[in-house]
Amino acid sequence: MLALTILGNNSAVPAFDRHPTSQVLTHNGNNYLIDCGEGTQMQLLRYKVRRSKISHIFISHLHGDHYFGLIGLLNSMSLLGHNQPIELFAPPPLKEILDIQLRVSDTTLGFDLNFHPITEASILVDTNALRIRCFPTDHRIPCFGFSFEEQRLPRKLIPEKARAYGIPTSYYERLVRGESYTTKNGELISVELVTEPAAPGPKYAFCADTRYHESLIEHIEGFDLIYHESTYLDDLADRAYDRYHSTSKQAAELARKAEVKRLLLGHFSSKYAKLDEFAQEARSIFPNTDLALEGLCYPIR
Amino acid sequence: MLALTILGNNSAVPAFDRHPTSQVLTHNGNNYLIDCGEGTQMQLLRYKVRRSKISHIFISHLHGDHYFGLIGLLNSMSLLGHNQPIELFAPPPLKEILDIQLRVSDTTLGFDLNFHPITEASILVDTNALRIRCFPTDHRIPCFGFSFEEQRLPRKLIPEKARAYGIPTSYYERLVRGESYTTKNGELISVELVTEPAAPGPKYAFCADTRYHESLIEHIEGFDLIYHESTYLDDLADRAYDRYHSTSKQAAELARKAEVKRLLLGHFSSKYAKLDEFAQEARSIFPNTDLALEGLCYPIR
Repeated sequence: MLALTILGNNSAVPAFDRHPTSQVLTHNGNNYLIDCGEGTQMQLLRYKVRRSKISHIFISHLHGDHYFGLIGLLNSMSLLGHNQPIELFAPPPLKEILDIQLRVSDTTLGFDLNFHPITEASILVDTNALRIRCFPTDHRIPCFGFSFEEQRLPRKLIPEKARAYGIPTSYYERLVRGESYTTKNGELISVELVTEPAAPGPKYAFCADTRYHESLIEHIEGFDLIYHESTYLDDLADRAYDRYHSTSKQAAELARKAEVKRLLLGHFSSKYAKLDEFAQEARSIFPNTDLALEGLCYPIR
Repeated sequence: MLALTILGNNSAVPAFDRHPTSQVLTHNGNNYLIDCGEGTQMQLLRYKVRRSKISHIFISHLHGDHYFGLIGLLNSMSLLGHNQPIELFAPPPLKEILDIQLRVSDTTLGFDLNFHPITEASILVDTNALRIRCFPTDHRIPCFGFSFEEQRLPRKLIPEKARAYGIPTSYYERLVRGESYTTKNGELISVELVTEPAAPGPKYAFCADTRYHESLIEHIEGFDLIYHESTYLDDLADRAYDRYHSTSKQAAELARKAEVKRLLLGHFSSKYAKLDEFAQEARSIFPNTDLALEGLCYPIR
């Protein structure tokens, strides 16, 4: 199962005790941190999300409200004795920013920070358990969304086919774990010929900061849950366009067209004290919409 | 009058809802921000300190718990329409750190940010109203304390001397405002010859991060209030020394030797949930000691 915890749901400027963007996706006891606005380390403390379980960090883009909290979090994890590697996926200039800050403070992190620059749509992580991709969004500077698909095992054996290919029954256990079979003659019998995939696992996509843009659809189609920004209400669609952001109704329209199951709205402008209208407007187009609220955990299937 | 508001009193890692170092000194309606740990912009909101009144920012050193909140604060002030210049005093590498972060986000601040590198003891600001100096402390990387001395007016006229120098009575008003007089022959009559200084104004010093070091005394002698770090209690004096920090009793000893009037302790290690013992230990040496507590305002005379 996947579960999403919201740490910050506000846009650029903190306001009304709402914090800049950050969320944590939990899977098999690992925490995948998505964006890291200022104060994320305090939000992790407040909502009792274990920092020590953060194995991967994904930064969508280099506007400050999406990454200013990263250097502080890494620093604190190191001071608190974290010693497991962290995989960091982000636009390339972030490396220079982190390096100089570590250098001037004469700091060596107590763990390996493996930096993976992201520059185009690609698969970032691909294991038996999880496939993570990034995809570009339509924003003022390079910006990426992230999709997370749980890979389910075991695959379902088709015994008559396995027998027909002469695969020994002692190998069946490896087939259902996803391994193909090689005969004594060196012939490869693909696992897909003799098994069926497991029922698909839950799928979540974080659509980052973006204008309404239908190029996103192919990356999120049919997903169980997507987070889509809605910086403004519908009456400010022009402002949203000018600033490379979206409105409540645009987020809902994309969710509808991508036939996802559920939509979370976030990245609310600091001009709004109350958020109810965001949900109301979006539900008029896509009923299964909720607000991404700080501290709440949204299970995904 | 000077007044000091504490925004953060914890050392390196946020804990127990204590925040990293930041404080605001208020004078004549201007806010002088001293250090700016992560989350300072939220603390300013929480304690209703007006960001728009920040005219000067002083960063003691480039350990993250003293400056990671700066870029976010500047960014937010710009987004909120701040348009008055800000004078920023800090160790030189901070400029590069800010520049790269503004560059990658394609951000131009809406106000002039005038960067003043600090590298040695010097006068940073010297007006009729306030004199601000920096002085080096004993820390692992270059680190500076800051002192603030209110300059009081009017000076006290000595009428018989002013008459003796032949200064016209119409000029007396300018003398008491601190202006010297130049005769028709071009001779300068120093204001100090014909007036006495006003009673000295209140003086505050922020002693930054430091080991116990008596070289600080000359910079803070007789001050009304000093803030001195006490990262550890007395039993961890060895650890304090190794990490270039001080203990409660060391801070008190320095306050006693410098004959200051009042001592505030801060920069508490995250290993301490409760802080009472810091005050108890320090008061055994210097009775007029208090804890720097977040959200409290300490008037200085």
